[in-house]
Amino acid sequence: MSSSSSLKLKPKTPELGACSLGPPAIGWRGHRLSLLDQTLLPARVKFIQPADCRAVVRAIQRLAVRGAPLIGVAGAFGLAQEAWRRSGVRGRGSGVSREHLRRVAETLKQARPTAVNLGWAVGRLERLVRDSSIPTHDLPELLEQEALAILREEEARSQRMGELGAALIRDGCRILTICNTGFLAAPGLGTALAAVYVAQRQGKRILVYVPETRPLLQGARLTAWELSRAGIPCVLLIDSMLATIMSEIDIVLVGADRIAANGDTANKIGTYQMALLARQFGKPFYPVAPVSTFDFATATGADIPIEQRDGRELAFCGTRRIAPGGVRFHNPAFDVTPAKLITGIVSDQGILKPPLKRAIEAMRIADSR
Amino acid sequence: MSSSSSLKLKPKTPELGACSLGPPAIGWRGHRLSLLDQTLLPARVKFIQPADCRAVVRAIQRLAVRGAPLIGVAGAFGLAQEAWRRSGVRGRGSGVSREHLRRVAETLKQARPTAVNLGWAVGRLERLVRDSSIPTHDLPELLEQEALAILREEEARSQRMGELGAALIRDGCRILTICNTGFLAAPGLGTALAAVYVAQRQGKRILVYVPETRPLLQGARLTAWELSRAGIPCVLLIDSMLATIMSEIDIVLVGADRIAANGDTANKIGTYQMALLARQFGKPFYPVAPVSTFDFATATGADIPIEQRDGRELAFCGTRRIAPGGVRFHNPAFDVTPAKLITGIVSDQGILKPPLKRAIEAMRIADSR
Repeated sequence: MSSSSSLKLKPKTPELGACSLGPPAIGWRGHRLSLLDQTLLPARVKFIQPADCRAVVRAIQRLAVRGAPLIGVAGAFGLAQEAWRRSGVRGRGSGVSREHLRRVAETLKQARPTAVNLGWAVGRLERLVRDSSIPTHDLPELLEQEALAILREEEARSQRMGELGAALIRDGCRILTICNTGFLAAPGLGTALAAVYVAQRQGKRILVYVPETRPLLQGARLTAWELSRAGIPCVLLIDSMLATIMSEIDIVLVGADRIAANGDTANKIGTYQMALLARQFGKPFYPVAPVSTFDFATATGADIPIEQRDGRELAFCGTRRIAPGGVRFHNPAFDVTPAKLITGIVSDQGILKPPLKRAIEAMRIADSR
Repeated sequence: MSSSSSLKLKPKTPELGACSLGPPAIGWRGHRLSLLDQTLLPARVKFIQPADCRAVVRAIQRLAVRGAPLIGVAGAFGLAQEAWRRSGVRGRGSGVSREHLRRVAETLKQARPTAVNLGWAVGRLERLVRDSSIPTHDLPELLEQEALAILREEEARSQRMGELGAALIRDGCRILTICNTGFLAAPGLGTALAAVYVAQRQGKRILVYVPETRPLLQGARLTAWELSRAGIPCVLLIDSMLATIMSEIDIVLVGADRIAANGDTANKIGTYQMALLARQFGKPFYPVAPVSTFDFATATGADIPIEQRDGRELAFCGTRRIAPGGVRFHNPAFDVTPAKLITGIVSDQGILKPPLKRAIEAMRIADSR
């Protein structure tokens, strides 16, 4: 057992990372994954330890763990945990079968369809599973190391996105965001909120407008909580208030769940109308996302699968029923913002500017080297 | 005591009115006002009897009764009830003072600032209070009669708006609305939903897209409930889903709380961005409102007072706290849609077409005759 297997996943940038900003959203100790159950925030800080692959899938599906980069990492550790679980700590590797791990990888990858990071991260571990030159009994250790490598890479990407994004934020800036894109959404500082955190460190005064982000209220529950902890002033809005406040905004910074090769960007439902309104008011609109969120193989947003979630998310708020029975619900979790509405994309490899298709192609070539 | 004082307020068009569509939102019996407590819908159908003027104000402020035309009528009956209450049924008129009724009228008018119908309806009763040619002991009866007259006029206006609005709805029409504008919002059929109800009666197939309308969820709780009762198919949406479904929509029909002389229209928060998105997708956008909602004395939307409500409406959903403490809230109950985004206004006096300022001026002249 390597020392890394008992490493508590702390961010590599302690002065800015999750350990200073809040409890770790994901942890790994003794070959076991632990997750901060985000469905209980802000009322409770509780960690869960999904016992097996099925429990990891459930945690991802019910949004105990969420945020495109974070579910990628959670999926990777879910596969590593499954390898360790099968091996048994004593009879190392004895119960591990490549066929089983391939099935588990497939299951994990399909937990949620829209964020490409999940398939990307689990896919990296899958390559090791498929590599017949690796002895089966070495797989648990190697899968764990690969998951840890992904985590550290994502932390570094988060830091880099934060630095690049912060350059777009001037002193006194009023920022509009959506959903949650901070340390609860990605290893390290986050994506869009990483830019906010770095800007704060640079001494810039910031005000963040936070739409509550129905139906699951990640803005109200998670982003307002993160920003409050960090001492960053924020104003909570309902999602239908955007036109009213857009003239006060200097920049819109959002996350992304999948960016197609032409720059069309899938993100939390509501992002598309935010981008349309930003355009109408002449405000710059930037998704912030690491390379793991880019889907070079998907030509346009029309090809991005959009997760349709249970209508009960709309019919209930907590345990309170807010809609009568027998009503139809339309509950896509994401929408697609066309590339033409995007001012630029803040990635860890630089700020991509239109034409986005060309910039993304250049990024793909650099990334594949 | 006239027989009208014990009249249960049933709509005059029973085949379409509230008695066929659902429980009456407002009632008057034995000089007492009763209100369907809309805060409890759809879970419970419960009537409250506000004992005095202060209780009526509270019912209006906490949205037990809501909808611009309906709070106008509720305010009028609130004043009539106060006159009866002071008179005592036996010592008729003895305890009624003009000065007291004037103060009560002022209090009622200020219960909510944005909907002009409240000031308009209470103001009509106030004219009787100020008329020194009327003996004080006749005021309870006359105020009651005036309140009943307003109710019946608003019912007739609702029917007329429904007929005019239905002409805009073709068979197979997909309609987007916001908040609640049916029999819970106005005497009779409602405003925007009146058009939907009449169109249904005309045999047209209709699908209504209903945004839940945070923070108080009048779309989910009230409109979905009304439409379900009426057997009209509807789809419940979150408020940030508009851009995603706008291309499927044929027409946008909304209510109004105050329409300025130039056509700028105050309505439920979210209406402005709905109008902007409708324009961007080339969809017709119509407020539906009776003459009582027009404020001929207010030049533009910039002069319309916008009610700022308690931030707790955003911090809680029912009893569940959804946002951390210490966060600032921005909670205007209304926004103003500029006249330039409005295709036309369906009023009881016809469909007003741009230039709206001229059409509204013509309406003012006709109304003052």
